[in-house]
Amino acid sequence: MKHVDALVAGVLGGRRRDVARAITLVESALPEHRAQARELLRVLRETPSSSVRVGITGTPGAGKSTFIDAMGVRLIERGHRVAVLAIDPSSSRTGGSILGDRTRMAQLAMSDAAYIRPSPSGAHLGGVARATRETMLVVEAAGYDVVIVETVGVGQSEVAAAGMVDTFLMLTLARSGDSLQGIKRGILEMVDVISVNKCDGDAEAEARVAARELTMAMKLITSDPDARRPPVLTSSSVTGHGLDDVWAAVVEHRAWLETQPGGLEAHRAEQQVSWLWALVEGELTDSLRRSPAVRSLRAALESEVATGELSALEASQQILRALAGDLPGLVGADGAGN
Amino acid sequence: MKHVDALVAGVLGGRRRDVARAITLVESALPEHRAQARELLRVLRETPSSSVRVGITGTPGAGKSTFIDAMGVRLIERGHRVAVLAIDPSSSRTGGSILGDRTRMAQLAMSDAAYIRPSPSGAHLGGVARATRETMLVVEAAGYDVVIVETVGVGQSEVAAAGMVDTFLMLTLARSGDSLQGIKRGILEMVDVISVNKCDGDAEAEARVAARELTMAMKLITSDPDARRPPVLTSSSVTGHGLDDVWAAVVEHRAWLETQPGGLEAHRAEQQVSWLWALVEGELTDSLRRSPAVRSLRAALESEVATGELSALEASQQILRALAGDLPGLVGADGAGN
Repeated sequence: MKHVDALVAGVLGGRRRDVARAITLVESALPEHRAQARELLRVLRETPSSSVRVGITGTPGAGKSTFIDAMGVRLIERGHRVAVLAIDPSSSRTGGSILGDRTRMAQLAMSDAAYIRPSPSGAHLGGVARATRETMLVVEAAGYDVVIVETVGVGQSEVAAAGMVDTFLMLTLARSGDSLQGIKRGILEMVDVISVNKCDGDAEAEARVAARELTMAMKLITSDPDARRPPVLTSSSVTGHGLDDVWAAVVEHRAWLETQPGGLEAHRAEQQVSWLWALVEGELTDSLRRSPAVRSLRAALESEVATGELSALEASQQILRALAGDLPGLVGADGAGN
Repeated sequence: MKHVDALVAGVLGGRRRDVARAITLVESALPEHRAQARELLRVLRETPSSSVRVGITGTPGAGKSTFIDAMGVRLIERGHRVAVLAIDPSSSRTGGSILGDRTRMAQLAMSDAAYIRPSPSGAHLGGVARATRETMLVVEAAGYDVVIVETVGVGQSEVAAAGMVDTFLMLTLARSGDSLQGIKRGILEMVDVISVNKCDGDAEAEARVAARELTMAMKLITSDPDARRPPVLTSSSVTGHGLDDVWAAVVEHRAWLETQPGGLEAHRAEQQVSWLWALVEGELTDSLRRSPAVRSLRAALESEVATGELSALEASQQILRALAGDLPGLVGADGAGN
C-alpha cells in the first residue's frame, strides 16, 4: 500500500488508480489498514464537500439501474462528475459484481466523469455501511460532486443509506390492478422524493394515476401536518420524461435542508448519530440470536408463553438475564461486570 | 386475601366482588401475590374462553369513550356481557381514574352486564400489559364474552394491546383541509378494522370522503398483495350510524382468523410470543438509557461521530462493550459472565 500522503495527493488530484487504492484501504477491516484509513480520511475531511448525496432505492423491477444510467449520463452532460456506490450486505465481491455493475450501467460506465463502485462485501450491514460512507468521502475528495448511493432493499440497507445521503429517492412502479404493491414497510416514511418510473408507452396513463394515488397516501401517512411531504413524480429512462423534474426535486430538497436550523452540516451530523444508535440496537437484536444462553432457553420459554403457563413479562426477564451473561463475550468486552 | 380456591369459585360464578379481588391479585407485583395469581390463572385457564377480544385505539378527539359506551350498550342489548379494560402506562391509580372511567362511559357503567376496569398503574408498559392480559383472563372466566381493551396511544401501548386482542379497531376523524392527520406512525400496519367516527351532521360528507381516501391509502400501504386489507367504515355514536357495521367487521375479522392455519388459538399463542420479544427489545433499549457506563461515554462518542472523527461502527462497538459491563446489574442477573 502506498504511503498515505501520496495517496491523499493522488485522490485530491482525481487519479482513478489512487481513488481505487484509497477505497480498497477504507474497505479493509485489518487493524493496520484501519489506522491508515483513519489518517487518510482525517486529511481528506479538511476540504469539506458540497457534493449532492442521493440515495436511490426501488421496488423490484422499478428499473433502478437503467434510471441511474440515464440520469448519470444526463448529469455528466451538464458538467457534473458522478460516483455510484452501492450498499448490498448480501453481496460477495467474487462472482464478478464489478463487471455486473458496469454492465447494468453501460453508458455511464464508459464515461471518464463517472466512477462506479459495487457494494463492499461483508455479511454485516454495519461494516458494509461504514465502508460505503468512507468511500463516499474518498470520491468526494476526488472531485465527484454527485454521489449516488444505491440500495438493494435487503434488510436494513435503506436505513443505512438514509443515514448517509442528503436526499432519498424511491422509484416505484404502477402495476395493473393493484397499483403500488411491493413498497417495503417503513420506506415511505424515509423517502424525500418519489418517482413512479417506467411512465412510458402503454403504462403511461397507469403511472400517472398511481402517482396521484401515492400523493394522497403520502398526505395520510405524514403524521406531522408541518412536515415536508415528498413530491411524487413520474419518470421514464426510455423517453427521458421526468428525469429533469426528478433531479430538480432532489436539488430542491437539498436546498430546503440548507434552510433548516444548522443547515446541511447539522443534518449530516444528526444522521450519523442516528445511524450510530441504529447500529447499537441492530447489534443487540443480533446478539439475542447469537447468545448460547438465550438459545438454550428460547424454545422452552416461547412454548410456556404460548400456552400461557408463563407471562411474557416473566419470560422476558429470564431472557434478559441470560443475555446479560453472554453479552460481554459477544461484543468483545472483557466479561467482568465493570 | 381469600384462599385461591374460593376466589376461583367466586370468579367462575361471576360474582363482581370476587372478580374485583382476583383482578387486584393479578395486578399486584408482590412475590407472594404473584404465586397466588399464577395458581388462580392456572385453574381459570382450564376453561378456554371463546370471548371476542377487541382492541380500540383512536386519534385524539376521535370519540373513543363515547363509542365504547354506545357500542357496549348495544352489545349488552343483544345479550352479550362486556368488559372494558385499559392500557395506559402513564396512568396513576390515585386521582379518581375509576370514577373517571365510569363518567366517561356513563350508560355502560350502569349496566350489570358490564365490567369497567381502568388501567393498572405502573410506569413500565411491560408490567401494565401483563396485568391487563391477566385481568382479561379473569373477566373471561367470569363470563364476559366481549372484552374491549382500550389504549390511550401513549408510547407503545398499542403494541401491547395488539399483542393480546384478536381484532384491533382504530377510530379516526375527518379533519377539514388535512383529512386524516394525527394517525401515529406504524399504527395503520397494526389495525384490522378502521372507522372514521363522528360521521354525523355537518361532518358526514367529509367523513365519507376521508373513509374513501383511507381505503385507497391502505391499499398502497399493504406490501403483501395477499394480505387481508382492513375495511374502512364510518360511524357515529350520536346517531348510531355504522355501529352495527363496525361490529360485523370485528366479528368477520375474528371468523377469518379462525380459518387461518391453527385457528384462533395459534394466533393468540403467536401474539404472546411476539409480545415477549417486543418486551425484550424494549428493555434492552431502555437499558441503554439507564447504563451508567453508556451515559458517561454517550456525549463524547456522539460528538466524535457527528464531526466524523470516529465512524458510527466503531462508536457502536464502544457503546456495546460499555453496556455489556452494566447489563447484569440492570436486569438483575448475578453479574458473572456465565
